[in-house]
Amino acid sequence: MPDANPFIKQYLMTAGPTPLPPRVSQVMAEPVLYHRAPAGVELYTRVLQRLPAVFRTENDVQLFSSSGSGGMESAVANLVRPGDRVLACAAGKFGERWIELGEAYGADVVRYEPGWGARLDPAEVERLLGENPEVNVVLATQSETSTGVVHDVRALAQVAQERNAFLVVDAISGLGAADLRQDEWGIDVVVGGSQKALMSPPGMGFVSASQRALDFAAERPGGRYYFDWARTVGAQRKDPPNSPFTPPVTLLAALDVALELIEEEGLDNVLARHDLLARATRAGVAAIGLELFGDPDERSTVVTAIAVPEDVDGAKLPKLLRDRYGITANGGQNQLSGKILRIAHTGYFGAFDILTSLSGLEMALVELGHPVEQGAGVGAAQRVFVDAGVPVA
Amino acid sequence: MPDANPFIKQYLMTAGPTPLPPRVSQVMAEPVLYHRAPAGVELYTRVLQRLPAVFRTENDVQLFSSSGSGGMESAVANLVRPGDRVLACAAGKFGERWIELGEAYGADVVRYEPGWGARLDPAEVERLLGENPEVNVVLATQSETSTGVVHDVRALAQVAQERNAFLVVDAISGLGAADLRQDEWGIDVVVGGSQKALMSPPGMGFVSASQRALDFAAERPGGRYYFDWARTVGAQRKDPPNSPFTPPVTLLAALDVALELIEEEGLDNVLARHDLLARATRAGVAAIGLELFGDPDERSTVVTAIAVPEDVDGAKLPKLLRDRYGITANGGQNQLSGKILRIAHTGYFGAFDILTSLSGLEMALVELGHPVEQGAGVGAAQRVFVDAGVPVA
Repeated sequence: MPDANPFIKQYLMTAGPTPLPPRVSQVMAEPVLYHRAPAGVELYTRVLQRLPAVFRTENDVQLFSSSGSGGMESAVANLVRPGDRVLACAAGKFGERWIELGEAYGADVVRYEPGWGARLDPAEVERLLGENPEVNVVLATQSETSTGVVHDVRALAQVAQERNAFLVVDAISGLGAADLRQDEWGIDVVVGGSQKALMSPPGMGFVSASQRALDFAAERPGGRYYFDWARTVGAQRKDPPNSPFTPPVTLLAALDVALELIEEEGLDNVLARHDLLARATRAGVAAIGLELFGDPDERSTVVTAIAVPEDVDGAKLPKLLRDRYGITANGGQNQLSGKILRIAHTGYFGAFDILTSLSGLEMALVELGHPVEQGAGVGAAQRVFVDAGVPVA
Repeated sequence: MPDANPFIKQYLMTAGPTPLPPRVSQVMAEPVLYHRAPAGVELYTRVLQRLPAVFRTENDVQLFSSSGSGGMESAVANLVRPGDRVLACAAGKFGERWIELGEAYGADVVRYEPGWGARLDPAEVERLLGENPEVNVVLATQSETSTGVVHDVRALAQVAQERNAFLVVDAISGLGAADLRQDEWGIDVVVGGSQKALMSPPGMGFVSASQRALDFAAERPGGRYYFDWARTVGAQRKDPPNSPFTPPVTLLAALDVALELIEEEGLDNVLARHDLLARATRAGVAAIGLELFGDPDERSTVVTAIAVPEDVDGAKLPKLLRDRYGITANGGQNQLSGKILRIAHTGYFGAFDILTSLSGLEMALVELGHPVEQGAGVGAAQRVFVDAGVPVA
């Protein structure tokens, strides 16, 4: 692949695509498998067996050759008919995708938009469902990558259940980084993607839909084919499982290794690592004297959004990090462009990635004329790691 | 990736996924790029610039993170509204996918089904369009992978133009293996896929739609999002191009190398190589005393389908090739299961792949009790290569 600047060492610090463990990258260089030969079937079967654990579900997890957005589309295409009233919750760029998807499919979309950076308020969702009793699908986001906020989808699920509506959660960036217990919390549909905390390349979307949601979709046929749940679940439930379309075998091989790594580390440990990285990041940001953006809380373990100080040109910050320090980090998207910097801790991230990001941030701020006590943020983050008393590399 | 049998050398001889050149495989082991950073944008831009040449078009080629079937679905989702009458031409498994897609989208599908293995007859298409003057979309296949037949899409395009209908061609397995000149022949929409003659892993679908087709689609909005042409073309036409969804960067890197290899070899030479491999295969098959399946002609340069002789158990043939000789070849699909064997020459194939396939076939036939003059097929194929007087490795 082309390198940004081959003369300085590169650090991919984005919240998706995320860096891959070497074992995951290496397996993609191996010869391609034919998906219908025994070794290919074995690979596909094993990936399908491994996926439900990260959703904490007994559902079949449907695997699509698509970006995560394809998985989101499948939820709308399968559950929503033109004219249906749905409730879309949007507090950032990815929440807004639900509105766009609903409208593309001709739904009558009730919007709950508390503003970018806000946390979705379950009471407000309850009120809107009370006002719109015909709504039977609620669309929401777990980890809103554009703002760093992780929403309380457990509480949203409870509200949706009480109102007898299906809750569909975009957990693309959250899955494997922020706690999500689909079956225990009663979330009807969870959408995931490969290129976030699942430490795989982009190109696979996942959908875990309850049998109730599958049955509801089956009563609303037509208008879909590639993303049809009945086709996919039907094929995956065969013995052995059979992909309805040619699966992305190279990416499957990568995902298989990545899911094995998650199993080896243990999902609880993976989540605890993300929590630790996020706490260290927040401590570092505070010690640098910067504010977090929006309304994050202890659930915000995926990406930390920092408000760029007023005296700094927010567009220059990620550019400087990239061009001078080799750090590819996320600035803000759309209305937050130039206003925030996002430090990712999503997937294959360890303590020194956070310390590197904070070091880069300190140096870049100084260079952009913002006063910083250099090393203060790094030191504060270090203290969190030391105090944790666990391996952090 | 798991290996079928680690103790015997493996040969992937299928028509998709196809074997990858080592340079293509290797690039996927490199670190992941962020698609919105300069190096990622450069990669995406270059791939988009390289793609039209293989379609021989001036159109923008839309790139989807999906299997090739996703590209097919996009054509139906963008061009067809519920109740529209469309003409679907199906002479094999992949032609039938057009019927399924049309029906999934609520079209009134007129079927032209001359039987698996037949060649689509342009005169029959003309007759059906005459009988159904309201049809404005014709769905057809270039290379029908399930039967080995490559249809005369040039003649179909002429008929469609005369009747003022859009011709949509599934060229997934044909693109880069069988001649296709989209602009010269006036084909409105051509669908491609990454995992065939484009020598890349599965996971990318391509759609080259004429401006006329794009305009027609724009008059029929709704019911699509991920596969919406206006969204994709709009994003790709930005400067620099911008992917509407996270693109499969690892697969893009592979495709970039593969397209560079095709440019280096030269598309005309690539097509001539496929033609030579196909001719050698047919000569070998004839010398073994076997019949080709269906109605192939000199256009059938993608995969050669062979009728399994009556005295051979057709299900055992690919299994024996695989388990005893390490050759993963395609048997028949659906109604042709057990009746044909397919020898692929799609993409990264050379003379010795054909000679290996023929050798395996000769040995397997003997083992299954069918009399064969061993070496006869290989010898006949060799003579085609020698007579060609060009480098064949």
